[in-house]
Amino acid sequence: MSAREYDVIVIGAGAVGENVADYAHKGGLSAVIVEAELVGGECSYWACMPSKALLRSDAALRAARAVDGAKQAVAGAVDVAGTLRRRDRIAHEWNDQSQVDWLDGAGIDLVRGHGRLTGRNAVTVDTPDGLVELTARHAVVVSTGSAALLPDIPGLRDVSPWTSRDATSAKSAPQSLAIIGGGVVGAEMATAYASFGTAVTVIARSALLGGLEPFAGDAVRASLEESGATVLMGVETLAARRVDGAVELDLSDGRTVTADEVLVATGRTPRTGDVGLETVGLTPGDWLDVDDSLLVRGTDWLYATGDVNHRALLTHQGKYQARAAGTAIAARAAGRAVDDAPWGAAVATADHAHVPQVTFTDPEVASVGLTEAAARRAGRSIRVLDYDLSWIAGATTLADDYTGRARAIVDTDRDVLIGATFVGAGVGELLHAATIAIVGEVPLDRLWHAVPSYPTLSEVWLRWLEDYRG
Amino acid sequence: MSAREYDVIVIGAGAVGENVADYAHKGGLSAVIVEAELVGGECSYWACMPSKALLRSDAALRAARAVDGAKQAVAGAVDVAGTLRRRDRIAHEWNDQSQVDWLDGAGIDLVRGHGRLTGRNAVTVDTPDGLVELTARHAVVVSTGSAALLPDIPGLRDVSPWTSRDATSAKSAPQSLAIIGGGVVGAEMATAYASFGTAVTVIARSALLGGLEPFAGDAVRASLEESGATVLMGVETLAARRVDGAVELDLSDGRTVTADEVLVATGRTPRTGDVGLETVGLTPGDWLDVDDSLLVRGTDWLYATGDVNHRALLTHQGKYQARAAGTAIAARAAGRAVDDAPWGAAVATADHAHVPQVTFTDPEVASVGLTEAAARRAGRSIRVLDYDLSWIAGATTLADDYTGRARAIVDTDRDVLIGATFVGAGVGELLHAATIAIVGEVPLDRLWHAVPSYPTLSEVWLRWLEDYRG
Repeated sequence: MSAREYDVIVIGAGAVGENVADYAHKGGLSAVIVEAELVGGECSYWACMPSKALLRSDAALRAARAVDGAKQAVAGAVDVAGTLRRRDRIAHEWNDQSQVDWLDGAGIDLVRGHGRLTGRNAVTVDTPDGLVELTARHAVVVSTGSAALLPDIPGLRDVSPWTSRDATSAKSAPQSLAIIGGGVVGAEMATAYASFGTAVTVIARSALLGGLEPFAGDAVRASLEESGATVLMGVETLAARRVDGAVELDLSDGRTVTADEVLVATGRTPRTGDVGLETVGLTPGDWLDVDDSLLVRGTDWLYATGDVNHRALLTHQGKYQARAAGTAIAARAAGRAVDDAPWGAAVATADHAHVPQVTFTDPEVASVGLTEAAARRAGRSIRVLDYDLSWIAGATTLADDYTGRARAIVDTDRDVLIGATFVGAGVGELLHAATIAIVGEVPLDRLWHAVPSYPTLSEVWLRWLEDYRG
Repeated sequence: MSAREYDVIVIGAGAVGENVADYAHKGGLSAVIVEAELVGGECSYWACMPSKALLRSDAALRAARAVDGAKQAVAGAVDVAGTLRRRDRIAHEWNDQSQVDWLDGAGIDLVRGHGRLTGRNAVTVDTPDGLVELTARHAVVVSTGSAALLPDIPGLRDVSPWTSRDATSAKSAPQSLAIIGGGVVGAEMATAYASFGTAVTVIARSALLGGLEPFAGDAVRASLEESGATVLMGVETLAARRVDGAVELDLSDGRTVTADEVLVATGRTPRTGDVGLETVGLTPGDWLDVDDSLLVRGTDWLYATGDVNHRALLTHQGKYQARAAGTAIAARAAGRAVDDAPWGAAVATADHAHVPQVTFTDPEVASVGLTEAAARRAGRSIRVLDYDLSWIAGATTLADDYTGRARAIVDTDRDVLIGATFVGAGVGELLHAATIAIVGEVPLDRLWHAVPSYPTLSEVWLRWLEDYRG
């Protein structure tokens, strides 16, 4: 057994772990990162990047088909082989050398193997060459992410169900695919596979994209149905089995769905079951409860960043936490003041009610901050501003028969924006304006002077403000 | 001769005139608008809208061709007939009935004919049915816009040169087109006609897109050349003539360019030559000098909104001025306090250094606020943050081999953004985030918490901020 000492040990080399190690290292600390799988993590190989690759080809064709003068040059559907090949490239053929090189360049050591806490500031890594004992002078960061949750449906584990990893890394499109779950993963993969010609059936317990403004899920459902998919809502899956190679699912409405494969996308579970939490008084398999500097509550040395803390299961938000945690760790190690007041450099304040998300369905859904329902639940005084994006000149030039909708939630006590949702083709890049307005708490009277360029979709801002003033 | 009295008379029913009348009317005033051509104006029929229609079809195809899996379904070039047909629809076939209906609905009277000031608060309109005398109780607004400037090049007027109106309303694409001028109109029309298969030659006195960050014009020039166009820079046109139907242009470098048509896009001139300025002590043909409430200096009743005041020759900025002027006029008429402190509702503060613009070339160029050069000229303490957009994950998923660049200008005295420029495919909708950050004067420390969604191009914000902090 070999032993090494570092200032900081990070368990998990996804984008989040890499960033926390990098920020701690830039803050003057030595850092080692422990990874049992590919450096780069879920997002690079089995989530954000490959899923967007699977979706982008058809999205580009749809955009061209929606424009007279362009549509004449578009013949046929998306090329599945080309799309999968592109996905392979974007997932770096599941080879992490470029990420390993990045760690090298950043001055961060890598230990490949399964890491487990063995006590305060102590981690043992089970490597191919034997156990390696790591000791941290200042902090250990758990950044092991989350895994697909397999619900307790009789027979489900025995039918070799796909999880998000299988859906994003598949080498071919099945003839038919059942998807249990109508959240982001279910909706995005339904969109992708429907575009590949797969007969898709989505089985959702409630509406699609729950938690977002209801009109978002409604638009995605309508579009999926138009593309030939079946969307079942308010339905539970009661049992699963393989019959002659096909999966059969018994549903709560009495129906049976048959498909070549079934994708289970019903949520996530923290990868904390086997990281030695029990050695430091925590419960294996739990989400890790942290403060805004990402310090696990009740400790002064253990941090948790990214999905494992259950604050916001999104790569960009995890990276944001990583920047805060790395900054906090470096400051505390040096005995410097920690900038941990709200909106300080060492805290992830935006996690609470300022989280952006783009869902790359058809139409795209981009949201940040509070929905109407969330704002009302929180007892906020609000006004809801809705606008039909098809009325905007920029939509007219973007596509023939553009459809879309945008909603702003205004806090009427403070005259600032606290939420925004955009639904429509190409709305993803509209989101950051709302994120800045919300996080920056820019008064609506000042936003009045932020003139949107004509003719862009961003003119929805003018319409919202006119509506609010008028 | 008939005579009528209104609270406000607006000369010119472009988007700007319509808005100033509408805001004055909503402020409780009666309003009449005078228009000699089509209600809706230059932008609707001969500028923004048709030009974007001419550009959009090919842009959509380019975006699809840039994605493996999509490109296989794209065969051939843009369909010119389909593009022109779409342009015709977007320009409402040059029929203004829908705009007239909008005026009706908004409660604004329309007098069709050429309007001329005849003295304080007095306008005479030369209508098909004779002269109509209009009297304003409170204000007259000149909103007559601008026209293409024909430079004083020997022979140019005799070759029937195209102006922006001809380029945006052409019924077919010429075999060859020379374009004098490398500004926004020249660059956009070069992009459009090159995509139609027209042999395009751009003749520019300096670089393309002067006034913007130099890398913007460089990228557009490279792309035009790649698409087969010829771009001549640092060259003047000395003489023009028609020979056997073709236009010949003698250039300052000794070259002669021959083309079927020549588009002159060398600037704009105010449409104030024949609006009776001489009757109120002003000089016909001049730009009208206004204060921030758009009141012509030296008067207490005459306003000028839109291009004629030469503050910012852009539809969206003119509409912004219109909202301010309409608000100011209504307040002054009612004897109410005018909200005319900087950033008040009755002033166009953003005109000074907060003007956004999207140029729909290939690549797109989106800019707001000060360029590096402008900031240095103004003596500001700045830092320039440059980022190669191809390094962003969102660019990787958007297109294969994406190229682009983004620059932020930070005021280091105040730690706020004062300028931003984005160059690349699909960057138009990224702009409004920068406009809000600049106009909202959001401190960079707070922008740090405005997390861009992964994987979108908006992650350039994170890179800028890391660069600034790092």
